Amino acid sequence: MSPSRIAAPSLRSKVMSAHDAAALIDPGSTIGMSGFTGSGYPKEIPLALAERIETAHAAGDPFAVRIWSGASTGPELDGALAKADGIEFRMPYNSDPIAREKINRGEMQYFDLHLSQVAPMAWEGFLGPLDTAVIEVTGICEDGSLIPSTSVGNNKTWIDCAQKVILEVNSWQNMALEGMHDIYYGTALPPNRVPIPLVRADQRIGEPRFRCDPDKIVAIVETDTPDRNAPFTPPDECARAIAGHLIEFLRHEVKVGRLPQSLLPLQSGVGNIANAVLTGLIDSPFDDMTAYTEVLQDGMLDLLKSGKLRVASTTAFSLSPEAQLGLNRDLDRFRDKVILRPQEISNHPEVIRRLGCIAMNGMIEADIYGNVNSTHIMGSRIQNGIGGSGDFARNAFISAFLTPSTARRGAISAIVPHVSHVDHINQDVQLLVTEQGLADMRGLAPRARAELVIEKCAHPDYRPMLRDYYDRARKGSYGQQTPMLCGEAFAWHQRFIETGTMRV
Amino acid sequence: MSPSRIAAPSLRSKVMSAHDAAALIDPGSTIGMSGFTGSGYPKEIPLALAERIETAHAAGDPFAVRIWSGASTGPELDGALAKADGIEFRMPYNSDPIAREKINRGEMQYFDLHLSQVAPMAWEGFLGPLDTAVIEVTGICEDGSLIPSTSVGNNKTWIDCAQKVILEVNSWQNMALEGMHDIYYGTALPPNRVPIPLVRADQRIGEPRFRCDPDKIVAIVETDTPDRNAPFTPPDECARAIAGHLIEFLRHEVKVGRLPQSLLPLQSGVGNIANAVLTGLIDSPFDDMTAYTEVLQDGMLDLLKSGKLRVASTTAFSLSPEAQLGLNRDLDRFRDKVILRPQEISNHPEVIRRLGCIAMNGMIEADIYGNVNSTHIMGSRIQNGIGGSGDFARNAFISAFLTPSTARRGAISAIVPHVSHVDHINQDVQLLVTEQGLADMRGLAPRARAELVIEKCAHPDYRPMLRDYYDRARKGSYGQQTPMLCGEAFAWHQRFIETGTMRV
Ligand SMILES: CC(C)(COP(=O)(O)OP(=O)(O)OC[C@H]1O[C@@H](n2cnc3c(N)ncnc32)[C@H](O)[C@@H]1OP(=O)(O)O)[C@@H](O)C(=O)NCCC(=O)NCCS
Ligand SMILES: CC(C)(COP(=O)(O)OP(=O)(O)OC[C@H]1O[C@@H](n2cnc3c(N)ncnc32)[C@H](O)[C@@H]1OP(=O)(O)O)[C@@H](O)C(=O)NCCC(=O)NCCS
Repeated sequence: MSPSRIAAPSLRSKVMSAHDAAALIDPGSTIGMSGFTGSGYPKEIPLALAERIETAHAAGDPFAVRIWSGASTGPELDGALAKADGIEFRMPYNSDPIAREKINRGEMQYFDLHLSQVAPMAWEGFLGPLDTAVIEVTGICEDGSLIPSTSVGNNKTWIDCAQKVILEVNSWQNMALEGMHDIYYGTALPPNRVPIPLVRADQRIGEPRFRCDPDKIVAIVETDTPDRNAPFTPPDECARAIAGHLIEFLRHEVKVGRLPQSLLPLQSGVGNIANAVLTGLIDSPFDDMTAYTEVLQDGMLDLLKSGKLRVASTTAFSLSPEAQLGLNRDLDRFRDKVILRPQEISNHPEVIRRLGCIAMNGMIEADIYGNVNSTHIMGSRIQNGIGGSGDFARNAFISAFLTPSTARRGAISAIVPHVSHVDHINQDVQLLVTEQGLADMRGLAPRARAELVIEKCAHPDYRPMLRDYYDRARKGSYGQQTPMLCGEAFAWHQRFIETGTMRV
Repeated sequence: MSPSRIAAPSLRSKVMSAHDAAALIDPGSTIGMSGFTGSGYPKEIPLALAERIETAHAAGDPFAVRIWSGASTGPELDGALAKADGIEFRMPYNSDPIAREKINRGEMQYFDLHLSQVAPMAWEGFLGPLDTAVIEVTGICEDGSLIPSTSVGNNKTWIDCAQKVILEVNSWQNMALEGMHDIYYGTALPPNRVPIPLVRADQRIGEPRFRCDPDKIVAIVETDTPDRNAPFTPPDECARAIAGHLIEFLRHEVKVGRLPQSLLPLQSGVGNIANAVLTGLIDSPFDDMTAYTEVLQDGMLDLLKSGKLRVASTTAFSLSPEAQLGLNRDLDRFRDKVILRPQEISNHPEVIRRLGCIAMNGMIEADIYGNVNSTHIMGSRIQNGIGGSGDFARNAFISAFLTPSTARRGAISAIVPHVSHVDHINQDVQLLVTEQGLADMRGLAPRARAELVIEKCAHPDYRPMLRDYYDRARKGSYGQQTPMLCGEAFAWHQRFIETGTMRV
């Protein structure tokens, strides 16, 4: 491991083992971790901390910490700490299966909020003090500034707000990352907030590196470890059908003049379906496209490679292991094509609305009126979290939610009479897309939406059941603005819980 | 009626009766009406149109129109047209009882969306073409520009987008209104949107009058008719208790340094409770306050008079008949204290977030996790609409929702196991306030929220029932992130529908 990654001479003395660095973290403290999806998260200190916690527990001593992150992280962080029963509070967004299990067993407090609001709320003092920031960086410059890693997330805020800072300098990360980031230092608390000066996805408004008070740095750990993201499943027929419907819609909007030929900046959510749409865009008639998004997946990388996508603004790479290895080898090629920003900027409502993003997000279920549940299975069991989907859906030019029309091999309809949890109110959902078709609900009142959603999106097996519910609600509902039968709105969910299927 | 209100000579020839003007409106056409709450809406043409519609119906001819407005309007508009069965589609926000009844009987399509998004969506072409704008103005200047009335709403957009424009020049409106408006002409469609340059509530960024192509004006009707808003009920003990809890909270936030002594710009929603809070602020220790809001109610006017509130930015006056008469007589006094803006600016997410508004809105019901229903009684019967509550709640610095803990003389609990409709997801609701107390949910995960909401906000009669539900959900729920019993989530609503009370 070459020492050249730590160019500031005064900081070299702070290099220590992960074990020693983890010893600087107190039980009960709040830690701001770097990382957004499986990119740019610290890889050794959380493991060492988990070990410390396990030792404490074995000795009968309580030890847990509060974890703030960018979004989800890798198994060495959320997974290891959750396994050690070391997380008492977690914010925001998690996709780690072990942490998910603990949360859904009621053993971990999980505070899920809009990704754009994490940094502002921390500054506003609403979340309490931040003790320690643990941040992966690509390198430390001579002036003490830090070269960010493969995600930015909330790192700027954690470094600024934390009392002490611990760094992991990961020499696995390509030094060509330097210059790809755009760290904006213009945010403030009201009444001193000013406009975010971003008017184009490809614009730079900040600095390439993090500022960091060297006196706050209490430890530096040198690592050489790859990021670990989950792989994507290749688009199957269903995913290709969903992508097809959406691209067909976009073609039509271009044709009637409501969208330019290069579209508007694309936002593409997490998950396999969103990825499939990006792959589908490679063969679309649009070019010179841009993306303003929060994660850059395999499909988007392919779209960049194809030349159809000119530039992508994001806060994190979110690539399959292969794509990531490929990118790491070949990063130079993308230096002027990718801009990595703090998540409060990548997800800023002001910027999303101004740019007029085309938002494409996955979901768990939608109801016949177009209310969307992105987070809670059967209303109570959290899958991941709301992430940035609310930031984008509410402020987008076009807001589309995508899902196969059924889940669990057909035992679950993704279109239900009434969603068991609401993340996106019908006002924020313009398009619902399944492999069955696309419901364009722009400008439609609830009853018209219901007709369309049942007709276009529901699976044929569930369509008659939805139709039957809706027809009866048209007769027996308390009011007729949004017909509903309180006595059976969740009967489908209840049936699934009791019998393992929503079918009768 | 003095002709001096129409200073542009070329336009005087277009003066005609309301009857003749209404004859220019075709069946099936889409009309952009002025008006926001009972202020600044056209008063004679809608009545004449309703008459025409009734005549057509009597002759067996179909006749209905599509109405776009700012928000709610007066009885001469929504009421008269709804009574004549003349509205086939209505957007957005309605508080007229006759229209409400038709909507809830399923006889009128009502498209309810965020008030900030009405104008952009019209420009984006998502709502179809606008045939005619019918706009009340205070006067017409020599250069053809229009002095707006007591509300701005979407008038700028309707005038710009409509094929033809019909004006009502209302000489009841005080000419001192001239100069109080700030009409911003800097909005655009993406990719040409730029930052809204507003950084303080008291700042002006536009022009005092509407521009209007004189060739589009097809008729001018002279009127002399007062605005008609509903009266407020004077704050009762319950309203004063709610106000007390909220003001106590604000004092505490100032004390711990999370809010400045002059607070941050206040937003106060429609309804009696919000009005009571404003009245309560007169005796509070805060001064030099500002408001950035969408309606200016009696309480806010009193707060301005008291000198505690320095300036209020709004899109409409929303005053009781007495307060309105008083203001009309005394308008000069408020010329430098009130700024009236288009609703796309008064409600702009970008501006609300930047200014850091303190949002205080009424609601129908909330659930134990802090999800809020502002619109649908028993999930299906619409009361008014979402209005600007989503624009403010999601982007505010502090987002508070206020309600008495029970409705219908105690037969309904405003805190329920599961809201029957969601307008504001728990992420957008920081404070719930009832006369029982205030739940400060900032930074809390769902289970901690539930404990607090049951404890602080529920009525003592319903608290044991909520506790019982929650305890059983802690055992029997599918997942434990947000415990829920699908089989009985809406049992309280169902019981009310069947028995007239939520009590067992
Ligand atoms: C909603 C979301 C989970 C879908 O992701 P995906 O990869 O397309 O989803 P999958 O089809 O793999 O489903 C994920 C899980 O949910 C389950 N699921 C999906 N739909 C379901 C439904 N209607 N009912 C019950 N379970 C469902 C699947 O069975 C699967 O569970 P399993 O792995 O235990 O079998 C994902 O998009 C998400 O987390 N969204 C919220 C955050 C977000 O949008 N972020 C991006 C904003 S920038
Ligand atoms: C929610 C809202 C209706 C409350 O207004 P309010 O004046 O405080 O309400 P009221 O107590 O007079 O209640 C209005 C009606 O709802 C009923 N109601 C209130 N709470 C209820 C509940 N939990 N269940 C059933 N009905 C309820 C009342 O009984 C009353 O009906 P009635 O006139 O037929 O008796 C109002 O704030 C609103 O329309 N909000 C949405 C829009 C908004 O927030 N705009 C401002 C944003 S800037």
